[in-house]
Amino acid sequence: MTWEQGQKTPRNAPRGPASSRRGFLTLAGATALGGAVGYTVPFGAEGLIGTALAQEKKLPDFVKTKDLNGLIVHSDKTMETKRGFITAGSVTPNKLLFVRNNLAVPDESVVANADAWEVSIEGVKNPRKLTIAELKTLGIESVAAVQQCSGNGRGYFTHKPSGTPWTVGAAGCVIWTGVPLKAVVAALGGPAEGAKFITGTGGEKLPDGIDPKTLIVERSVPVEALENALLAWEINGEPLLLVHGGPLRLVHPGYYGVNNVKWVKTVALTAAESDAKIQKTSYRLTPVGSKSQPSEPSMWEMSVKSYVTGPSDTAKAGKTVITGVAFGGTQPVTKVEVSADGGKSWKEARLVGPDLGKYAWRAFALQTELPAGTHILVSRATDASGATQPEDFPGNEGGYAHNGWRDPAVKVVIS
Amino acid sequence: MTWEQGQKTPRNAPRGPASSRRGFLTLAGATALGGAVGYTVPFGAEGLIGTALAQEKKLPDFVKTKDLNGLIVHSDKTMETKRGFITAGSVTPNKLLFVRNNLAVPDESVVANADAWEVSIEGVKNPRKLTIAELKTLGIESVAAVQQCSGNGRGYFTHKPSGTPWTVGAAGCVIWTGVPLKAVVAALGGPAEGAKFITGTGGEKLPDGIDPKTLIVERSVPVEALENALLAWEINGEPLLLVHGGPLRLVHPGYYGVNNVKWVKTVALTAAESDAKIQKTSYRLTPVGSKSQPSEPSMWEMSVKSYVTGPSDTAKAGKTVITGVAFGGTQPVTKVEVSADGGKSWKEARLVGPDLGKYAWRAFALQTELPAGTHILVSRATDASGATQPEDFPGNEGGYAHNGWRDPAVKVVIS
Repeated sequence: MTWEQGQKTPRNAPRGPASSRRGFLTLAGATALGGAVGYTVPFGAEGLIGTALAQEKKLPDFVKTKDLNGLIVHSDKTMETKRGFITAGSVTPNKLLFVRNNLAVPDESVVANADAWEVSIEGVKNPRKLTIAELKTLGIESVAAVQQCSGNGRGYFTHKPSGTPWTVGAAGCVIWTGVPLKAVVAALGGPAEGAKFITGTGGEKLPDGIDPKTLIVERSVPVEALENALLAWEINGEPLLLVHGGPLRLVHPGYYGVNNVKWVKTVALTAAESDAKIQKTSYRLTPVGSKSQPSEPSMWEMSVKSYVTGPSDTAKAGKTVITGVAFGGTQPVTKVEVSADGGKSWKEARLVGPDLGKYAWRAFALQTELPAGTHILVSRATDASGATQPEDFPGNEGGYAHNGWRDPAVKVVIS
Repeated sequence: MTWEQGQKTPRNAPRGPASSRRGFLTLAGATALGGAVGYTVPFGAEGLIGTALAQEKKLPDFVKTKDLNGLIVHSDKTMETKRGFITAGSVTPNKLLFVRNNLAVPDESVVANADAWEVSIEGVKNPRKLTIAELKTLGIESVAAVQQCSGNGRGYFTHKPSGTPWTVGAAGCVIWTGVPLKAVVAALGGPAEGAKFITGTGGEKLPDGIDPKTLIVERSVPVEALENALLAWEINGEPLLLVHGGPLRLVHPGYYGVNNVKWVKTVALTAAESDAKIQKTSYRLTPVGSKSQPSEPSMWEMSVKSYVTGPSDTAKAGKTVITGVAFGGTQPVTKVEVSADGGKSWKEARLVGPDLGKYAWRAFALQTELPAGTHILVSRATDASGATQPEDFPGNEGGYAHNGWRDPAVKVVIS
């Protein structure tokens, strides 16, 4: 099942108002909040709350690895990159990468002794536990991939889905390094009979007294993902940070972030999807107002998406370079168009910087002239399969998979 | 003039003993020095001194942006990445990138107000000063490139040249973002008549009472470099760090680091090379024991090079993945061979991770089996022009341009 198939369900679902304009809060005084000016965010309030949280030192220890100036802190488990900090540099610095954890982060001791971390490999001919030290003897690969929360853009849906109201910043492009999962599976004799899914289980400590199935992070993806999956111990050239799943994370390039199970303790090739709530009914494309069903599309492969990241409101009339990022999920981006009039007219942008492969994002740039006045900047990407971002992505109960081009608009006042 | 031409001079120069074996100091207790174990460095003493310096807080403010655990601190102006911290992740994190400054770093205020920084563009039809804010309206590009000190590997020369005795860590691969210099030149009417060089001048404060020409950082490269030159304000997705030349650096992909003028105040298209000492006689390939001459090859384009970065001495007998990095200067790397017996026998390694373009380095990996015992690991790269690393690079007075494959060997004891 691909995401393209998945899109069909919510397209038939009842649609709310097309778009929320509550988003255009320009942070004119944003310098005081961390130095980024001129981008617009729908949920400035969370940014303020986040700053207050940070100032009061109520955030977990892992924030010492983060640049809070560049993040909107929604909570101690959810932080998104400010739009103005997303650059044309192709790779998102670790300190600016968004944070989204379902449960509390494990103790730092797990990364202090990383090589001793054990993962159980099951659903293979010779199942066993392997330490990271052992995994490192089986092969190495690096892949650049967009890491994106399924709910990135949730803040734009007008039915106000529950969950973090991310705008554009719950995504980054990172370079993962680890061992190809298929090399591990091969070393253990290959898949057992009947394997249809790869099921990863996270190592978070579960609270007592609650049915584990309602909390455990256990995600299944189609076994075809074995071709590209990594067991990763590095992110952007440094040991995988605790907050991002270190010491070991299951990574499925091209898939939504939730499938990239952090602190991974078990990887199993299974005949069926996990029956954990996070797989069975959460992260499904469910019509607004309905109860989620296991038959609905799961948040697996990502779809084509883009957004403008510059200029900021300090721009002057005349020559301007409009920049942004675009990605195709599992397809390379082939074209990005940019509009400075909210989508009435479009010009093709240039793809900028190194091509890091089809799972990565590409920076884009359009050199243009903008006269004094107010401009609504939007971008629209097309991938190699021919898929183009829709103007609006229809609402769904969980607020997932937003890839409409209209909502992430940037309003720029040029003088 | 290309570096390939440049190599001819020192090849005819008198050669000292082929190689120094003083390098094999294994840091068995290196964990206490910062967590990296198992690599060998010739100048462990500097690492100790550096750690002591850091502990005594005698290092400049910029070290707060650096991970001193991963650096050998030679002095307050010279720090190299420890071999064990160079990973297969393709891009060197800013906090691990080597430091090499000729003069004291400017005041932090220059990066605090980056957009106001001015650079004078001269040797064009309409010369003028431009602020970074203005440069940002003229275009944007990103390029991944190896940033390498001309003296990387100097520590391997047996004639003990003066200057920092770098081993392998005075190089990294970074993604620069800025405006193409050719777009700036075009916006100012194009080159003036007779332009043969691009001459960049750094903005360091020069001490009083000393002839400025003996100290000023002013480098010239052939005007052909205009095709790829950037005026860069970002490194790896964040504003260019002060210690690395922020807020603005002239970058010539494929050229040695000295040509990438930091805190750049003037970029001029000139008829002749600068008469500053750093250009006229320093950074030349001069026979050992001789006085440098302006006619000798300048440290411009880099040559093909590689080195092993893993495993560490914690490896156990059996399956092992030998890793490293390889680059071709201005040519893509096409082949890397690895030897575990000091060069007696070779196997071809696999190139790992995304191809970031011809100016970047590629990680490589060889999956092999190593029995118990002592192994000498070396690598040898070939670029698209057919150039292959020599076994030994002949000595030259300044200790520049080392790319021999034998000296950077790693001795691994496997049990």
